[in-house]
Amino acid sequence: MKQNFAVIGLGRFGSSICRVLASEGQEVLAIDVNEERVNHLVNTATQAIVADGQDEDTMRSLEIGKFDHVVIAIGKNIQASILVTLVVKELGVPDVTAKAENDTHARVLTRIGADHVVHPERDMGERVAHHLLSPNILNYLALNDDVTLAEIKITSSEFVGKSLMDLNFHQHFGLTVIAIQHGDKVTVSPAGNDVVRLNDEISVVGSTKAVDALNDRMQ
Amino acid sequence: MKQNFAVIGLGRFGSSICRVLASEGQEVLAIDVNEERVNHLVNTATQAIVADGQDEDTMRSLEIGKFDHVVIAIGKNIQASILVTLVVKELGVPDVTAKAENDTHARVLTRIGADHVVHPERDMGERVAHHLLSPNILNYLALNDDVTLAEIKITSSEFVGKSLMDLNFHQHFGLTVIAIQHGDKVTVSPAGNDVVRLNDEISVVGSTKAVDALNDRMQ
Amino acid sequence: MKQNFAVIGLGRFGSSICRVLASEGQEVLAIDVNEERVNHLVNTATQAIVADGQDEDTMRSLEIGKFDHVVIAIGKNIQASILVTLVVKELGVPDVTAKAENDTHARVLTRIGADHVVHPERDMGERVAHHLLSPNILNYLALNDDVTLAEIKITSSEFVGKSLMDLNFHQHFGLTVIAIQHGDKVTVSPAGNDVVRLNDEISVVGSTKAVDALNDRMQ
Amino acid sequence: MKQNFAVIGLGRFGSSICRVLASEGQEVLAIDVNEERVNHLVNTATQAIVADGQDEDTMRSLEIGKFDHVVIAIGKNIQASILVTLVVKELGVPDVTAKAENDTHARVLTRIGADHVVHPERDMGERVAHHLLSPNILNYLALNDDVTLAEIKITSSEFVGKSLMDLNFHQHFGLTVIAIQHGDKVTVSPAGNDVVRLNDEISVVGSTKAVDALNDRMQ
Amino acid sequence: MKQNFAVIGLGRFGSSICRVLASEGQEVLAIDVNEERVNHLVNTATQAIVADGQDEDTMRSLEIGKFDHVVIAIGKNIQASILVTLVVKELGVPDVTAKAENDTHARVLTRIGADHVVHPERDMGERVAHHLLSPNILNYLALNDDVTLAEIKITSSEFVGKSLMDLNFHQHFGLTVIAIQHGDKVTVSPAGNDVVRLNDEISVVGSTKAVDALNDRMQ
Amino acid sequence: MKQNFAVIGLGRFGSSICRVLASEGQEVLAIDVNEERVNHLVNTATQAIVADGQDEDTMRSLEIGKFDHVVIAIGKNIQASILVTLVVKELGVPDVTAKAENDTHARVLTRIGADHVVHPERDMGERVAHHLLSPNILNYLALNDDVTLAEIKITSSEFVGKSLMDLNFHQHFGLTVIAIQHGDKVTVSPAGNDVVRLNDEISVVGSTKAVDALNDRMQ
Amino acid sequence: MKQNFAVIGLGRFGSSICRVLASEGQEVLAIDVNEERVNHLVNTATQAIVADGQDEDTMRSLEIGKFDHVVIAIGKNIQASILVTLVVKELGVPDVTAKAENDTHARVLTRIGADHVVHPERDMGERVAHHLLSPNILNYLALNDDVTLAEIKITSSEFVGKSLMDLNFHQHFGLTVIAIQHGDKVTVSPAGNDVVRLNDEISVVGSTKAVDALNDRMQ
Amino acid sequence: MKQNFAVIGLGRFGSSICRVLASEGQEVLAIDVNEERVNHLVNTATQAIVADGQDEDTMRSLEIGKFDHVVIAIGKNIQASILVTLVVKELGVPDVTAKAENDTHARVLTRIGADHVVHPERDMGERVAHHLLSPNILNYLALNDDVTLAEIKITSSEFVGKSLMDLNFHQHFGLTVIAIQHGDKVTVSPAGNDVVRLNDEISVVGSTKAVDALNDRMQ
Repeated sequence: MKQNFAVIGLGRFGSSICRVLASEGQEVLAIDVNEERVNHLVNTATQAIVADGQDEDTMRSLEIGKFDHVVIAIGKNIQASILVTLVVKELGVPDVTAKAENDTHARVLTRIGADHVVHPERDMGERVAHHLLSPNILNYLALNDDVTLAEIKITSSEFVGKSLMDLNFHQHFGLTVIAIQHGDKVTVSPAGNDVVRLNDEISVVGSTKAVDALNDRMQ
Repeated sequence: MKQNFAVIGLGRFGSSICRVLASEGQEVLAIDVNEERVNHLVNTATQAIVADGQDEDTMRSLEIGKFDHVVIAIGKNIQASILVTLVVKELGVPDVTAKAENDTHARVLTRIGADHVVHPERDMGERVAHHLLSPNILNYLALNDDVTLAEIKITSSEFVGKSLMDLNFHQHFGLTVIAIQHGDKVTVSPAGNDVVRLNDEISVVGSTKAVDALNDRMQ
Repeated sequence: MKQNFAVIGLGRFGSSICRVLASEGQEVLAIDVNEERVNHLVNTATQAIVADGQDEDTMRSLEIGKFDHVVIAIGKNIQASILVTLVVKELGVPDVTAKAENDTHARVLTRIGADHVVHPERDMGERVAHHLLSPNILNYLALNDDVTLAEIKITSSEFVGKSLMDLNFHQHFGLTVIAIQHGDKVTVSPAGNDVVRLNDEISVVGSTKAVDALNDRMQ
Repeated sequence: MKQNFAVIGLGRFGSSICRVLASEGQEVLAIDVNEERVNHLVNTATQAIVADGQDEDTMRSLEIGKFDHVVIAIGKNIQASILVTLVVKELGVPDVTAKAENDTHARVLTRIGADHVVHPERDMGERVAHHLLSPNILNYLALNDDVTLAEIKITSSEFVGKSLMDLNFHQHFGLTVIAIQHGDKVTVSPAGNDVVRLNDEISVVGSTKAVDALNDRMQ
Repeated sequence: MKQNFAVIGLGRFGSSICRVLASEGQEVLAIDVNEERVNHLVNTATQAIVADGQDEDTMRSLEIGKFDHVVIAIGKNIQASILVTLVVKELGVPDVTAKAENDTHARVLTRIGADHVVHPERDMGERVAHHLLSPNILNYLALNDDVTLAEIKITSSEFVGKSLMDLNFHQHFGLTVIAIQHGDKVTVSPAGNDVVRLNDEISVVGSTKAVDALNDRMQ
Repeated sequence: MKQNFAVIGLGRFGSSICRVLASEGQEVLAIDVNEERVNHLVNTATQAIVADGQDEDTMRSLEIGKFDHVVIAIGKNIQASILVTLVVKELGVPDVTAKAENDTHARVLTRIGADHVVHPERDMGERVAHHLLSPNILNYLALNDDVTLAEIKITSSEFVGKSLMDLNFHQHFGLTVIAIQHGDKVTVSPAGNDVVRLNDEISVVGSTKAVDALNDRMQ
Repeated sequence: MKQNFAVIGLGRFGSSICRVLASEGQEVLAIDVNEERVNHLVNTATQAIVADGQDEDTMRSLEIGKFDHVVIAIGKNIQASILVTLVVKELGVPDVTAKAENDTHARVLTRIGADHVVHPERDMGERVAHHLLSPNILNYLALNDDVTLAEIKITSSEFVGKSLMDLNFHQHFGLTVIAIQHGDKVTVSPAGNDVVRLNDEISVVGSTKAVDALNDRMQ
Repeated sequence: MKQNFAVIGLGRFGSSICRVLASEGQEVLAIDVNEERVNHLVNTATQAIVADGQDEDTMRSLEIGKFDHVVIAIGKNIQASILVTLVVKELGVPDVTAKAENDTHARVLTRIGADHVVHPERDMGERVAHHLLSPNILNYLALNDDVTLAEIKITSSEFVGKSLMDLNFHQHFGLTVIAIQHGDKVTVSPAGNDVVRLNDEISVVGSTKAVDALNDRMQ
């Protein structure tokens, strides 16, 4: 079931969105005031045009109001980001995602009517920082403040060569093992006699403290 | 077990890294050529100083070579990013993470010796695009190309008010339910008689196709 | 009964506001990022300081939230105008007047929470245009769409030297004469035997069409 | 009886003038050095052209000298404002209105021969300031230094629900009531038994002190 | 009898004026907004100060109004030239000389009240052009449209070695010889037996045509 | 006998030279790098072209080397002035006049081979200064260090209405009267009974001190 | 045996390389982003085109990978120099020479894969310095740290007019004379009775100290 | 015997000269208008000062006229290069070396009086080009147009392992072998039984054609 997407602002963030959407077979209209940036997406997006999102007449003639989703991925120009968001919402777009430069900007976007506000650089900074702190935690999802689902790399010899039954993560750490990844092979809901090897990545779920405790044992 | 971190470049990405590291009680040295940016982190980082990372003498006097991890979060200035990476590696830092503006830049950083190269805006663009495509998939971890672990929001009435036993995700979708999140409450390894309610978020693991199939039913 | 006023942005518009408020004995805090502009008001305003209204911490330390009225008279910088308005409203100022550069800007300001939005150059343009069209109408107040109160200069000899009784504006034009101004002298509610002289300015009230008809007779 | 108007300088002030004149069916020639600004008025003005008002030959070829009224609405560029005024006056325009940035500029324009000099931002600043000081005075005309004609909003309960006869503004304040505006309805020269209601706007004429006294009672 | 001079604008033209006036023992106040230019005249002028001539308060504090002569030698900045001229005349300077960039500028200066308007580059261009056309005419004064007083260099052998009596310039050309310059020696009102030598410079007076005719004989 | 002139640099100085030469019927080639300046002379010069005088190939293709006289009237760009002078001299122009910005520049031009170096703004500054000092001396030619030929305006009553015989300038001042100018009429070699009137301009020759002494009597 | 050369960056250094290669009959492709620079080489190089060496697609379409030698002669733009070097090496060029601005830049170029790194200005500075110190040493080749081959100009009378046998450079200085240059004539392996004359240039080989000793005798 | 050197212009070329001169124990005065550049040489030069070489007074106060050698190593600023050269020569420096940007610049410098004019980037470009063409010729000195002295690397197996007697370069190529360099060891005037090995560098002298012929055999 195809949907219409428009992306306004084709910097690294916006063009990355266009590429994924297009590769998933979606209709994507790519818009930027900068011709060079538009040209880089001319073979990727369904349509790529040079236009100023702040110009209500242009946006109306592009029938922006009929799009399902509009992403406003304008970079440094906070004024443009705000005015485009206003124009796009006033034209009736039901779902608008806007990128914010900072907290004040984010609050303005929300008041103006943006449905989602994202902070890509801040969020990626946080991800990189967590990875620096816990390099064995390859990925994680915080289910709530207390419960975390994490992929942990086995680098400590105390775990290597032992079965899940022996390791008994549930008893020792309060963690449930969801999957074991060995190279490209993933064993979902592994059995008790599955053995953990060096550099295997195990997916576990449990309290955040428990995840941290297991991670500390890997250092 | 505290480690030493230095972050060079204090834009939104770099300052976000400093904030997380500092909030986790780590020693963080924050460096930028721009005094205003340094001032914003003076109460956050262990030490925040105005310096040019390209100046080898300054870097040596700061004993950068003794740091465990250095993050080079320099934004638009590709030349500075490259030269700082060279200097920092030559001074002996074992683990250097550098931010790239584009693919060519990333390849240079790798050749220069960067241990990790990150593309925050590109990566966040991809995340936002996936969320636009599957808004019910709140988060996901791709364990390998075939197996995905995902949080899915229950918005379709066909699932609401039924127990896991009735829904039997394993049989119908090939998915294992890891947790059910209802508001702030998370039930890990839920029992068969646990009931799914509207807007609950369930964490499942299984093939990527299975996750997509479940997601499609939510639309 | 003194009130507190703060004016942020000290261009010609903002400084003109400061001057009137100060000349009326009010407490006025004048703020601009530009030191030169602040210096021009140092002897006029109660306090004139160099500060950036976008900086929430600074605004809080100035206790902007306790002011009765804040005027945001920032000129070309639409972004600053918007962010300052947000900050000032969030700090709790009950009455915020903001200057808009154009209609889109005005709509953003309203959504952000500005209590009054003014367009000085547009409004003055309209005033000047009306004066060009009807130079004999020195001033006017539109009471509603149909009724206007206007000061008209007598330049046509057909009115000169005649009494109000003879002229009978009520019968001939449907207008009531409120005042006759002869040089510096004003006669309010003039009598029927008051005589109109060349270049007298008469204040009349009646339908807008009637005012236009009288004005046409002066050309 | 149509007249010819030329407006040189199409910023917010000048374009606002063009719009009013055109909406009143006048012939308007709109001129600016900036093509974008000219384009914005191409559907509004009788003719909109890109030209430099300082170029005497161009102005002559446009036959500016034959226009009845020329408005020089040039913004920041004081030099251009002065030179255009000179050129336009030397070409014989009988009525030239010029916008001044400050007092010195205004004096130069007058010496150069401008027939009217306006200060839109300063004047609007004064209007806004007066409105801030007396928010109940919605509009006013100063007939001379002592006599003012004002529209006052009734917000004090002591006036509400009473007839003009009872209120006797003439005796208590020395003011004559010219009109009562209730919503969109205006009663000119109201009778003694007309009743004043909350939020009615009454137009009064009298001494400035009397107007202020009445206004103070509304606070 | 010393007079007071102020020179505002210290480019090559203005500083040249300062130097001559100072070398003639006059009191000279030298003013420019540019500190470097002021420093170059600090040992030449009686007083050299950094100030903006457009600032009426500064000019008043310097008591510019009490100077006998003010030269406004401001270069490219036409706006400053005009505003300074206005300020200086309004402060009561009886004799103001202002430099013009072009004809329109000159007309504005005259209207503003400048007593003398000079065009140094245009005038010198004309002098250089005349010298190119008639290199033997070393200098000339046009007494009126018909009569010229000129210094002519003798380069034609037909005049060399002959006495004034023999040459009889009066009869042959209608010219009166005022002086003969031979090297550094000048003979005023030379006698008939004074002999003309190669490269002597003779000063003659007569009709412009006569001067041209004599000059043509030198080529 | 027509000559060829080329003028490189068409600012106020260069264009003034072009105008005089053209008005005298000479062939003039006008050259500047700035198209706008060239356009202003297109109807004045024999040929006006946009070209860079520093480009030897262009200059050769214009056959600059065959011109009799080239004037290098380049303004602020000292480097261009020097390089053009070199190119023009190397192409064989016999007579090159170049404008200097300052003394060092002048010395370079001379070494490079310029035949004449002029300082228009400095020279005009000196002229204006002398006129300010001696406003009655309308013009003067310094024949050598001691002898001056000057036009003096008669403004003192002691000279008015008297004949030359009575005034006896030769005896009282050591000056010879060459001409008397009364309005537009000039009397060359005036007779003893010619009478001097108020505001007549008399041309005298004699020692510089004598001229100054006569001038002092006019104040 | 012709080889292919491409030179990227056509400043003074790069264009000098192009000129020599072309004059030796080699195929040279000249590339710069600046059209003016490319035009200067259009008649010199085999092909001269405007292109950005950082653009991998463009470089691929030019088949840069098939060239034998590429010189990256990009000036101040260190980032471009690095990225072009990467692109060119990745496309498979076997021999890449790159110009460095400073030592850090040189190290980056080496890591990126440049085969040769040159520092033209630094090297020429060293050559000029040596010539200033020993003006009699016209040229030299350092064979290793101890042995130098040098051309020395004979300016001291003690050597003039004597035969090599008499002078016996081998015994007195430890130097072997390879050639004697007298004007344009060179005698290779001169005989013992060859006589040295004033200003002859002799080529000698021996220890660096010996060369310096001979040179000191010339001062 | 120490000499005085001054270097004006401290870019890569000028600073390289300073470093060599200082390392040879010479007195060096380093001058630049740019403080940062001066600071880089403060520990290298005898004295390093911030000054403008165009300012004659400053140069006189530094007693530049008493220096034996002055190098004007000013980069892009052709005007400064010319004016400094003039000033320095006029102050009496006997030996002035100046760097030229291009041929016209060089000709001006020569006319101004520069004793030596160098083109570092052009000359290094030529060196690099020759090395690209003949990579086996490591270095060369052209004694005149016909005779060259060259260092050639032995890379062809036909020469390896043979004695000079066997190879007989004199007979086969017309070249005299001056030295053989094997690694760091140099044998000057080698004997006939000295053997040539792979990668040895032999210094030869002879006709340029002979050198080229030998070089071609190495390819």
